Formats: sequence, structure tokens, C-alpha cells
Amino acid sequence: MPNNPSAFSDHLVSAARSNRPIISLLTDFGERDGFIGVMKGVMLGILSDATFVDISHELPPYSIDAAAFLNHWSFGYFPVGTVHLCVVDPGVGTSRRGLAVQSQGHFFVAPDNGVLTPVLQSDPHAITVSLSNRDTWLGHVSNTFHGRDIFSPVAAHLASGRAIDDMGERIPDPVLLPHPPPTFSSTQVTGCVRYVDRFGNLVTSIERPALEEWAARHEQELTRLVITAGSHEVHGISTTYGDHDPGTLIAVFDGFDALEVAVTQGNAANHTGLQAGAPITILLSGT
Amino acid sequence: MPNNPSAFSDHLVSAARSNRPIISLLTDFGERDGFIGVMKGVMLGILSDATFVDISHELPPYSIDAAAFLNHWSFGYFPVGTVHLCVVDPGVGTSRRGLAVQSQGHFFVAPDNGVLTPVLQSDPHAITVSLSNRDTWLGHVSNTFHGRDIFSPVAAHLASGRAIDDMGERIPDPVLLPHPPPTFSSTQVTGCVRYVDRFGNLVTSIERPALEEWAARHEQELTRLVITAGSHEVHGISTTYGDHDPGTLIAVFDGFDALEVAVTQGNAANHTGLQAGAPITILLSGT
Amino acid sequence: MPNNPSAFSDHLVSAARSNRPIISLLTDFGERDGFIGVMKGVMLGILSDATFVDISHELPPYSIDAAAFLNHWSFGYFPVGTVHLCVVDPGVGTSRRGLAVQSQGHFFVAPDNGVLTPVLQSDPHAITVSLSNRDTWLGHVSNTFHGRDIFSPVAAHLASGRAIDDMGERIPDPVLLPHPPPTFSSTQVTGCVRYVDRFGNLVTSIERPALEEWAARHEQELTRLVITAGSHEVHGISTTYGDHDPGTLIAVFDGFDALEVAVTQGNAANHTGLQAGAPITILLSGT
Repeated sequence: MPNNPSAFSDHLVSAARSNRPIISLLTDFGERDGFIGVMKGVMLGILSDATFVDISHELPPYSIDAAAFLNHWSFGYFPVGTVHLCVVDPGVGTSRRGLAVQSQGHFFVAPDNGVLTPVLQSDPHAITVSLSNRDTWLGHVSNTFHGRDIFSPVAAHLASGRAIDDMGERIPDPVLLPHPPPTFSSTQVTGCVRYVDRFGNLVTSIERPALEEWAARHEQELTRLVITAGSHEVHGISTTYGDHDPGTLIAVFDGFDALEVAVTQGNAANHTGLQAGAPITILLSGT
Repeated sequence: MPNNPSAFSDHLVSAARSNRPIISLLTDFGERDGFIGVMKGVMLGILSDATFVDISHELPPYSIDAAAFLNHWSFGYFPVGTVHLCVVDPGVGTSRRGLAVQSQGHFFVAPDNGVLTPVLQSDPHAITVSLSNRDTWLGHVSNTFHGRDIFSPVAAHLASGRAIDDMGERIPDPVLLPHPPPTFSSTQVTGCVRYVDRFGNLVTSIERPALEEWAARHEQELTRLVITAGSHEVHGISTTYGDHDPGTLIAVFDGFDALEVAVTQGNAANHTGLQAGAPITILLSGT
Repeated sequence: MPNNPSAFSDHLVSAARSNRPIISLLTDFGERDGFIGVMKGVMLGILSDATFVDISHELPPYSIDAAAFLNHWSFGYFPVGTVHLCVVDPGVGTSRRGLAVQSQGHFFVAPDNGVLTPVLQSDPHAITVSLSNRDTWLGHVSNTFHGRDIFSPVAAHLASGRAIDDMGERIPDPVLLPHPPPTFSSTQVTGCVRYVDRFGNLVTSIERPALEEWAARHEQELTRLVITAGSHEVHGISTTYGDHDPGTLIAVFDGFDALEVAVTQGNAANHTGLQAGAPITILLSGT
């Protein structure tokens, strides 16, 4: 996970929340069927000057891992005080809880299914409440659309400045999903594909600082490492897409300092046949 | 059609319109070609503090029925005073009229092709005007993009607080499309698929209150009804998606109280081969 | 290229910039992976009351020509003072410059790869600066996401009212792409397909005013011209889509006065097999 650029304090959070309130939205609902529009309508009814920013609504349905990844790498680029609404919810209508989390000056509203794992794991001081205060929900709650009936009104109430403890009681045990970190042995780094973007770039779990340290310890330049992605090998980490001929399979640090396997002006997922979860290994050259 | 949650009065409409004006947009223009952006640019030129909410722009082209459905089930979740711009317009450039409608505290702007049928049929007190006041249009009107040249400026003028009668003369005869309601016989309910969402859920014309009343009259639990969708049978209406194994064909009331045929974590349209318009029947068990 | 409807002066620009600042966005980043959301988060951190309007994020990747086309035909429908952020950037991370341009009361921020060619060619008085003032960038600049790290913060600073000269030094030589204009001979007009929209409409480089003048000079009605698109002929230019049976191949002036080859309620690109760049010719009938 990339380092998060937020700087904050309680004072800053208060100041930020007196500005125009911002609510980001990340779901797998798609933009075709009006679900997102209705959620925004509900929120505007509570908070008429909300500013909405869509992160994505086109995740593969029920992809909790992809949502967890996108939420974690995007939130820190928003002003402190932003409320991040993150609804990928295969368990809607069951007894799974809803969560509101306050971490690093930001707020998160999501079902309790692990989608906030990276946020929670990176902040031991996060405040986590279970959504149980029905006064902060719509009057009528359906069994199938908690995004509209529970999560949206809670997000709007948080963005309007209400305290997180108004949303429900604090809980110690939010659901956490396993995210095995990459392993660094004396001869090899082993990670995996965390996310495949629309360009087919393979975003891996291997991040620049840890890899740089490992390579330095073995006195090898990044440009000499050998990256194995499925049946393909890439020799060396490049500094940019633009220096290669179109169609070249390369490894590069992306805009969030994650190692990415890409094809310049092409599609690495199609090229390699790899998907999220596939292993990625890195060897020292000459080994 | 679901009951609409709006509560309003003329006083509330006036108050709402003094807040930040909201314009929702529902079209089949897609989000790829800049049409929606240009419409918003035009509206911002008239009303610089408009808040836009996209309902959908990815409807199948020329799907008046789908737009009518989405518009009707979404509008009531917006604050009173919202202007709903609804442009699916296969007849652009012909002599078809444009409409502005005031109903239940909301405003609607659309071509006169039936897309507002559910709104008009559910409110005998709706005010309907034909767009004829060229002062509320762009100076130059093309033959092919009335969404930009007529409907958007009219929506912005309405959202800015101008009276609906400024847009044109009242008319008694807007185009209405037939929407046959479901039939309830002594042994069977017959409805149809009204809408197929991106998850492949089949949203039917059969709604919870009427079905509950029919089942009660026949002294049968909803969990014992037999729903026929094409060559598939579903036994009983479930309370939620989450209680079934992935891949199960179920019937459930959706977030808008419409009966929906769905596959948990799957695609019911693909599973059943059904599309919008397909008949759905419900029998008492043991008949 | 269509005539641009903007009217402006320095005074108007100042006045417009004291209203709510508007930033339009046009990229090939897609809306699935969170890139656009992060860019908006960055801009809100600089300018909390920005209003964003998405033009398109679904351009075919690396389609500088398509972006140039959409940017040029859309910008004039926005209020004077709008900042248009236009990032199609296959050269990200190389030494290609970034640009800010002030033209006709509007501002443009883009990589220096030709995407602003139509704007620059239509305004000899445009002010062009190379983005070199790192104080207007994010503190950390990646090699792969200048949309977030450079172009977004520059756009937000411009929208907040900072002078374009604060962004870098003026340059005389922005990259311009060749856009051959259509040719008008005594017997034939030769142009090309400039853009294919999601409906499959073929938008050509041939515009109404020049074609009308040519036809008038040859004393022929537009309704008698013969348009050749690949192996297909269209006889006469229609005034609207709606007057034809569904499935008919027609030629029509679109909402921006460009000649368009279309299939009513169908897809002309599929029908003709033509793509962007394909030649379109027009003959006088009887020749």
C-alpha cells in the first residue's frame, strides 16, 4: 500500500468540515441503472451543498478486494474531512453490520465485510462504529439497497458535521480480510497482482520503498532485476512508459509507488493472461 | 410503480428552490462523446450554482420505456424542487413537442414521446406545458441536439426559479404510452419484466402491496407462491439476496418494492433468457 | 470545426472567474480505476468550491485526435472563465512539455502533444505557456500520472484565479498536429471521418457553411448531393434523423454543423465499416 499523503489534526478536521463537504463514492453498482443518482438525491436531501466525487462504480460486481484497494490508494488525495462512501455489499440484507470509520482525518462508511481492511490495518488509532442509530437512516429500510437507505444518509450526516459516535456504538472487531504482504528472501521477492486496471496494467503488491531497500541490500540496480509475470520475464524496472516502443512489456513504478507490469500503449493482462491474485516474482539478475 | 416518498407543498417547493438548485439528468447519450458535458456547460451558463446528478446515460439507445421506468422510480428520492431532465429522443428534429411538467413538487423536462407517462398517470394534478417560448432556448437550435439547445436551457431556467408557465402554454394531451398493469385473477397473477438492470436482475411490474393483498386474500404465505419466469420456476419470495448460495434463482422485493427475479451473485437475464416485456406469472402453490 | 459561440472580453473573463469556478475534464483514463476521482480530490484540496464537468473519460486510449476534436467542439458551450483539463498523454514521463493556454476567454491545460491543435489554430491571439513552475504542482511528481500531479493542480490554480503566467514561461512553438481541411474542387468535395460517436455516427470534417457555399456556387440543392462513404452512397442531405425509417443510411448536419453520416436508430460505423480517418466524398448529382 502506498504511503498516504494526508496531514491532519483534530483542528484541521474541524476546519475542513466547515468548508464545502465532500463525499466520495466507490461502488460496484454501475452507472446504468440509476442507483448512484438515487443515493446522491438522498444525500442532497440531508446536505444540500454536498460535493460528490465518483471514484468508481464499474468494479467487477462483488469485488471487495478491488474496492479495498481503490479506496485505500485514493482517499489520501482528498481534503481532510472528506467522507468516503464505499459500498460493495454482497451480504446486503443479511445480518452483516454497517461501519463508519474515522481515520487520519477522513471518514469511511461501508458494509462490515473487509472492504476497509487496508484503512483499518494502517491506522491503530482508527475509530470504528457499527451503524445502529436508526435516526441516521432513511425512515424505510429495504432489504436490498442499504447503499441508499443506510450508508448514504449516514455519509451525509457525517459530512454535515455530526459526530461519528452519533452513528452507533464503537466496536473492536471489524471484519478484516487477509492481505498477505510480499515476501523478501535472500534470492527472491514474491508478491502478487493486486489490481488490474482498464488499460490492463497489472498493479502488484510490491512497493517501491521495500523493493529499493531489498535491491540495495543485494547491491543491485533496479534496472537489472528480473521480474517474472506468468510465463513472461521483464528485465529491469523502467522509469516511465514513454521511453519504450509501443507493445513492449515493461515493469514500472506507478503513480502510487506500486510496481506495475504494463505493455506500453497495450494491455498487459491480455498479453500475459494474468489476473488479480496471480503471483509475481522478482529475482536478482545472474541468479 | 413504487409509491413515491415525496412530501411537499407549494410552500416547500418555494423554499427548496431557494437552496442550491439540483438538476438530475437521464439520457441515452452515453458518457463517451461529450454530449452530457456540453449540456451541463450550457446549464452552468444560465445557472452557475447548479448541482448536477447523473441518473443514467447508458440506457439502450432510444429506450423510452426504460427511461420512463428509471425516471419514475428515482425522482422521489430527490429534494422537492429538483428539475429532472430526461432526454431519450428518437424523434429529435421532427414536429414532436417538448414538455415541462410540474408534479408532486418536482419538475420534469423531456420530449413529448411518452417518457413521462408514469409521472403523468400517477398525478392528475400535474401541470404540463409545451415548450414553445424560444426565449428560454439557446439562440441557435440545431435539428439533432435538442438536449443541448432546448431541454437543457429550459431545465436551467426552471431550476433558477422561473415559473413553468414561462416555458410555454399548457396542454391537455401529452403523449402517454400504454403500461398495462399486472392482472390478478382468482388463481394467477400476470405481470411482465419492466426493466433489466446491469446485474441482470429482472425487475417486474408486480409490486409488493398488491401482491401481498392478493396472497392474503387467498390465505397463502408469500414464501409459498410459485413464480414462473420463462421456463424457470421459483418457489417462494425471499426476503434478501444474501441468504442463498451464489447462483440460486430467487424472487425478492427490490429496494423499490417491485418483485424482482434475480440470481444471487449472478445474472438472471442470462440464466432465464428473458428481456424487458417478457411475461411473469405467479401461482398459488398446490394449484 | 464549428464556429465557437463564445463571446468574451478581459472584463468578462474576470467577472466569470469571480463566480463558481468550473473545470471540465476530458481524458482517456476511464471511469473504472479511480484516476478521475483522485484528480478531483487533488483539485478540491486547492479549490474547495470547484464545479467539475466530465466531458469524456472513455476515449479510445491514446486517441489524441479524438480528444482534440471533442475538446474543440465542446469548450465554447461553457461559461467564459472555464478551465478545460484535457489529458490524453501517451508520452507521460518523457520530456514532453505540459501546456496551459488562454484563448477566447477559456483556459486549457494539457500535455504538449497536439491535443490543443484546433484551439491554437483557430486563435492567433492565444497565450501559451509551458508548465514549469513547480510551485503549482503537487509536492511529489510521479513519472506515470501527471494528470494528478501536474495538470490537475495547475487547472485548480488557474480556476482559482491565478494568472496563466504564474504557471510557466510563454512559448512560441506548441506541438501542432496536421488536420487537413476538406478540399473543394469544381466537381467534388473530399473530406474525412473526424470522429465516430457511440451511436456509430460518422462525424466528418465537412462543415455546413463551406458546403452550402460550394453547392450554391454550383447551383445545386443540398438535397441532391451524392455523398460517398466507403462502398455506400447517400443521396441528399436530410434535415433530421426522425423523418426516415429506422435503419436508413442518411447524411445530416449534426448539432455542431458538421456533416454526419448516420443510420437512423442504427450504427453507421458498423453499416459502412468505416473508422476515423476514412475519406468521405461529395459529388454533384448528374456528374
